[in-house]
Amino acid sequence: MKVNGAPTRPIAVASDGWAVEIIDQTRLPHAFVKVRLETLADAERAIRDMWVRGAPLIGATAAYGMALAMRADASEGGLAEAYRRLYATRPTAVNLRWALDDLRGRLGGLAPEARPAAAYARAAAICEEDVAINAAIGRHGLALIRELWERKGRPARLNVLTHCNAGWLATVDWGTATAPIYMAHDAGVPVHVWVDETRPRNQGANLTAWELLNHGVPHTVVVDNTGGHLMQHGMVDLCIVGTDRTTARGDVCNKIGTYLKALAAHDNGVPFYVALPGPTVDWTIEDGLHEIPIEQRDPAEVTRIAGLADGGQLLSVAVTPAGSPAANFGFDVTPARLVTGLITERGVCAASHQGLLSLYPEHR
Amino acid sequence: MKVNGAPTRPIAVASDGWAVEIIDQTRLPHAFVKVRLETLADAERAIRDMWVRGAPLIGATAAYGMALAMRADASEGGLAEAYRRLYATRPTAVNLRWALDDLRGRLGGLAPEARPAAAYARAAAICEEDVAINAAIGRHGLALIRELWERKGRPARLNVLTHCNAGWLATVDWGTATAPIYMAHDAGVPVHVWVDETRPRNQGANLTAWELLNHGVPHTVVVDNTGGHLMQHGMVDLCIVGTDRTTARGDVCNKIGTYLKALAAHDNGVPFYVALPGPTVDWTIEDGLHEIPIEQRDPAEVTRIAGLADGGQLLSVAVTPAGSPAANFGFDVTPARLVTGLITERGVCAASHQGLLSLYPEHR
Repeated sequence: MKVNGAPTRPIAVASDGWAVEIIDQTRLPHAFVKVRLETLADAERAIRDMWVRGAPLIGATAAYGMALAMRADASEGGLAEAYRRLYATRPTAVNLRWALDDLRGRLGGLAPEARPAAAYARAAAICEEDVAINAAIGRHGLALIRELWERKGRPARLNVLTHCNAGWLATVDWGTATAPIYMAHDAGVPVHVWVDETRPRNQGANLTAWELLNHGVPHTVVVDNTGGHLMQHGMVDLCIVGTDRTTARGDVCNKIGTYLKALAAHDNGVPFYVALPGPTVDWTIEDGLHEIPIEQRDPAEVTRIAGLADGGQLLSVAVTPAGSPAANFGFDVTPARLVTGLITERGVCAASHQGLLSLYPEHR
Repeated sequence: MKVNGAPTRPIAVASDGWAVEIIDQTRLPHAFVKVRLETLADAERAIRDMWVRGAPLIGATAAYGMALAMRADASEGGLAEAYRRLYATRPTAVNLRWALDDLRGRLGGLAPEARPAAAYARAAAICEEDVAINAAIGRHGLALIRELWERKGRPARLNVLTHCNAGWLATVDWGTATAPIYMAHDAGVPVHVWVDETRPRNQGANLTAWELLNHGVPHTVVVDNTGGHLMQHGMVDLCIVGTDRTTARGDVCNKIGTYLKALAAHDNGVPFYVALPGPTVDWTIEDGLHEIPIEQRDPAEVTRIAGLADGGQLLSVAVTPAGSPAANFGFDVTPARLVTGLITERGVCAASHQGLLSLYPEHR
């Protein structure tokens, strides 16, 4: 998507053909800083310090981290060390593990001198696979948005609400929940996006708003408390969110607060869609509410908020009394009954076992 | 309620018998600063700059502002000027107008030399009336909490969720939503309070948490996105919130986000109560969603967050990209169908026209 008018991806090989350029996302939205990764250590740091985040982007960065490592030392020892060090950056990230296993498997079967080129080629392929999936999600979502716009008599503004950042910054391009929005905007459907700020980490206010601003998509930031009021007053035509994990029956685990918006959508007859790559469905579980453990994160994310001070420095301020405890649940589960449909790279289906199987019959 | 172990009210006549002491609430929770009001100008500033906030407390401060004014100039002109200047501080505050009308009416009938003493006496009476109403709300709410606690087999912790600050800082003592909580705590019922931070102005994180911390009530601050998850997992036994305006059929207008919590409570079978003084019912309207206009406030409350920096200074930081618009709706309406009951100074009733009339038959 565009930044300062130029098509931009959150990860790309530099013009010299070997270094890897990423965006330091910890400085968004207040500063747009590209960082050049040249070594395994650079890639490690980018993942560990969350300069890159989002499952697909972490996987892509790890793949390029393997390529950078092979460039310096393509021996068996070099391969093992690169795997070990990259894996340790964020050991619970599923895509990280998947990308590293994939690279190690492919490179292990090659002679050391063939490894660097193979690693770069595979990293690029992993990136293009992600882009293709998201673009397909976008096309299916665009059809749905366009149909809704037509059905409503082509209003001057079609309002979409989203939560958190399932945007291009979390992927290699397009994003998941945002792909239909970008495609609709580019196709001339007048979408306007309500952006939930998404406390505690403010990914909506920090990242989704920045993405939309730079691509020129009309949007308005609201606090997380606002969506219900907007829906009660007909100010939301549809909701689209992403998901971290979807069960075989269509329960959706996503950023904390998603469930509250789904309840409001249901109460007001607003369609509530979840965009996801098929591979993120967890076919081994059904009941998201009881089978998905919810991560509890550092309470300091609740008690402090980071932002840009008037002097131009990034800093965080305390927003609670020093002695008050805080709890920080990272995700919640939206039951399938509240989900209008799932937008996948293979099409749109009902949030149900049957719906998912209609698109992914190989899991029958 | 207690601050540093000592019973404290947000407004009180100083030990010299004539000055008025308030708490500068803009500095909470990071600094507890009492301010001495000695003149009409002091009272004006305290209300206008929101050192005091909350409808009952604004009314009480205005009443004492009239008393301070009478002390300096009890003439007809002085009375008119005090009314005019205090009214201009926050002209949309209903309690402000009510208190000023009340004082002007009473004082106007007296000789100037009798006015100062009468003004102080009436201001004190207005305060005590507020305390009596809130204490009665607390007693009725305590009975309800105690019954729930008994019915659940006296669990070691009874979890109450609240939103925003309908606490003692907004009133003269006890608060409305917090009155049952303080009484339950003082009576030995082991209440624990989930405190919604309540963006954009963070009255939960800043004020409710500070109140509970100082009175020794166990509590945990959460971001506004969290309540649904807590209720899905049985971690909330009941919700109690306040209200700015309640319609004759029991629709409740309260801080933005209240409706989302009511939806989650309804979806999970958690009782959802609203605490209110009977006089705040607006008998002239029925349908809160369509008849109550919702105030839109400064978007800067969304795009910036105030807090305490590491150096100890209070400042605000920007949390959105400089070019992104924001919207700031102050309140939402929770339909009566989602409200389990209304806790008033006359008892608990159903959120319905019939329920309210059973307690307030004079409005039949």
